Amino acid sequence: MHRTLSVASSPVRDLLALTSRPEVISFAGGLPAPELFDLDGLRTAYETALQDRSVLQYAPTEGNPALRELVSSRLTGRGLPTPDVLITTGSQQALSLVATALLQPGAVVAVEEPTYLAALQCFQMAGARIAPVAGDADGLDPDSLRSVVATHQPSLLYLVPTFANPTGRTLSAARRAEVAALAAERDFWIVEDDPYGELRYRGSAVAPLASISDRTVYLGSFSKIGAPGMRLGWLRAPADLLRTLVIVKQATDLHTSTVDQAAAALYLTHNDLDAHVARLCVEYGARRDAMIAALPATVPDGTTWSDPDGGMFVWLRLPGSADSAVLLKEALRHDVAFVPGAPFFATTPDHATFRMSFTTNTPAEIAEGMSRLAEVLR
Amino acid sequence: MHRTLSVASSPVRDLLALTSRPEVISFAGGLPAPELFDLDGLRTAYETALQDRSVLQYAPTEGNPALRELVSSRLTGRGLPTPDVLITTGSQQALSLVATALLQPGAVVAVEEPTYLAALQCFQMAGARIAPVAGDADGLDPDSLRSVVATHQPSLLYLVPTFANPTGRTLSAARRAEVAALAAERDFWIVEDDPYGELRYRGSAVAPLASISDRTVYLGSFSKIGAPGMRLGWLRAPADLLRTLVIVKQATDLHTSTVDQAAAALYLTHNDLDAHVARLCVEYGARRDAMIAALPATVPDGTTWSDPDGGMFVWLRLPGSADSAVLLKEALRHDVAFVPGAPFFATTPDHATFRMSFTTNTPAEIAEGMSRLAEVLR
Repeated sequence: MHRTLSVASSPVRDLLALTSRPEVISFAGGLPAPELFDLDGLRTAYETALQDRSVLQYAPTEGNPALRELVSSRLTGRGLPTPDVLITTGSQQALSLVATALLQPGAVVAVEEPTYLAALQCFQMAGARIAPVAGDADGLDPDSLRSVVATHQPSLLYLVPTFANPTGRTLSAARRAEVAALAAERDFWIVEDDPYGELRYRGSAVAPLASISDRTVYLGSFSKIGAPGMRLGWLRAPADLLRTLVIVKQATDLHTSTVDQAAAALYLTHNDLDAHVARLCVEYGARRDAMIAALPATVPDGTTWSDPDGGMFVWLRLPGSADSAVLLKEALRHDVAFVPGAPFFATTPDHATFRMSFTTNTPAEIAEGMSRLAEVLR
Repeated sequence: MHRTLSVASSPVRDLLALTSRPEVISFAGGLPAPELFDLDGLRTAYETALQDRSVLQYAPTEGNPALRELVSSRLTGRGLPTPDVLITTGSQQALSLVATALLQPGAVVAVEEPTYLAALQCFQMAGARIAPVAGDADGLDPDSLRSVVATHQPSLLYLVPTFANPTGRTLSAARRAEVAALAAERDFWIVEDDPYGELRYRGSAVAPLASISDRTVYLGSFSKIGAPGMRLGWLRAPADLLRTLVIVKQATDLHTSTVDQAAAALYLTHNDLDAHVARLCVEYGARRDAMIAALPATVPDGTTWSDPDGGMFVWLRLPGSADSAVLLKEALRHDVAFVPGAPFFATTPDHATFRMSFTTNTPAEIAEGMSRLAEVLR
């Protein structure tokens, strides 16, 4: 019998199945709030797109030219000069194209620990070895990175530098400069995954790594600022690498849905996405505040948590030898859910950690969910 | 410098760029006829889907449950009992998931030669070695397969058994039985790629390999019977392998567009796809006949060609030492195009071969294109 691939399913996606009972208030998923989708604007965009039968035909692998231009202009306007992008089937696909193009079996990928689960899955599937880099409230620690690079010579460093999943932390500007310098000096790629960067509720933007390092592949997504169901992401990379990635995408799915791309291009042309994002930030900011405000009365003394300036997540650590996976079972009996932290660690899991998302529930639902959680945790 | 992947772009997709001048009558692409898309039916389906904001949200990796059920029933109704399918981002993605799940680097893939270009690309990207199997008018030759299996122990056999790309040939029922028996005996997977099977213009259906071999992964697509722009395919596999493929897809793009899937499910519920396919067959059958009828006056004496019962392609071989790539340049000067055959060969190309698609042009356009081509070839 020939060997088939051995891979594990995402514990978060498996968990989401358990938390889908309507009576559960779930802080588990990393889902945008559906009531905030611009359904009318998007419906009109699809309607307009489907006036033209060419949206039903095969299309270029690179993506819809108007959409590429709109996304590039938007990135340029936000301080990241962008001549072109490759449109991908969500930014998860961008990650998997990058893994295919840049990782030979046995290659090493450095990641901030803890990090985005599906990225770990993707790198493991490419046959890569994961080298974890330590971090703190200011994000990944450059000294730890320096030592990992010296020991393991990674092919690439993967990180979510702004409002990270799962920690909510942001890498400081000073540390970004150190990371960029190290990438140039030690010749590794930086993969800057930035699905949350526009969801900032306080403070001011930190320039993306891609704007200070030409060794950077920058991944963006429509999922958190538009709608994830459309599966639209984009990838910005140096021209040579971008060409390779187009070819990898060709073999992977030929191209992303012509219909969804045309609708997105029309939506961006006829709607003010900045204004929509501003509305999201007001609402999500209030939800963030509601969760942070309720935490002291919810968790036991000695619990620590991140205090994110944006994004979707708060990351917590219970005192002592608590096991959040065990507590989750109890929480589900109280109709409330979170994600245990262990799966976000590539190597040695910290079982006392867990992740809570504040975006999917209203402040009132958050208050109710937190009071249910208090019964479990305190 | 770490090594990046070395892969070649598809010569067919590169060629399509050259043939997009409006004055060119192109027989090059494998494109369905846009004027035959059911634009009204699909527009209504999208409009209905977008009444519900859940189509904008993340969704299960396996696919829209209603769509899975509809596709499974349709396959079952066509003689292939199907408990479940995985919905993919076009059947090209299905192929790439199968390659990821089943091929270790250095694995061998047996393919009928010539075969579908993007399949070769996909297997090469997975680090596989290609072992070509000879064929004739009845499709792949089981004796050649037997010898390839004995010598190379392939992990899988890839083929388009019905109306193959590029040859238009169909594997006979007797040969299918031999292939199935050999797969059981020598323990390799069969990947049965069937995007064209429903486009039959004469004769009667041959049972799919998947219906006689449980070592078969069956790939289907909405691209040729519905609309390729929606990027919807499906994959039927034994339950264990299907579970693995779901996990691979999770790491690859999380899931296929929720919007496109919901629209397809509504379309299949409220429209008669069989009737639509019957209309396509009448029209494409007439186009096939127009091309075949024009061939004797178009090509030089001694040219041979396939006489397909369905699908989209006629495969030709010029006499002597003709080079179809050279002739294509001349053809483009006469505003007509085809695809040279060489890239469809995994190993030793036959430069005298070329592929012509009859689906994209009306019988009148075909007549005009063939008379332009006659000036080049005769």
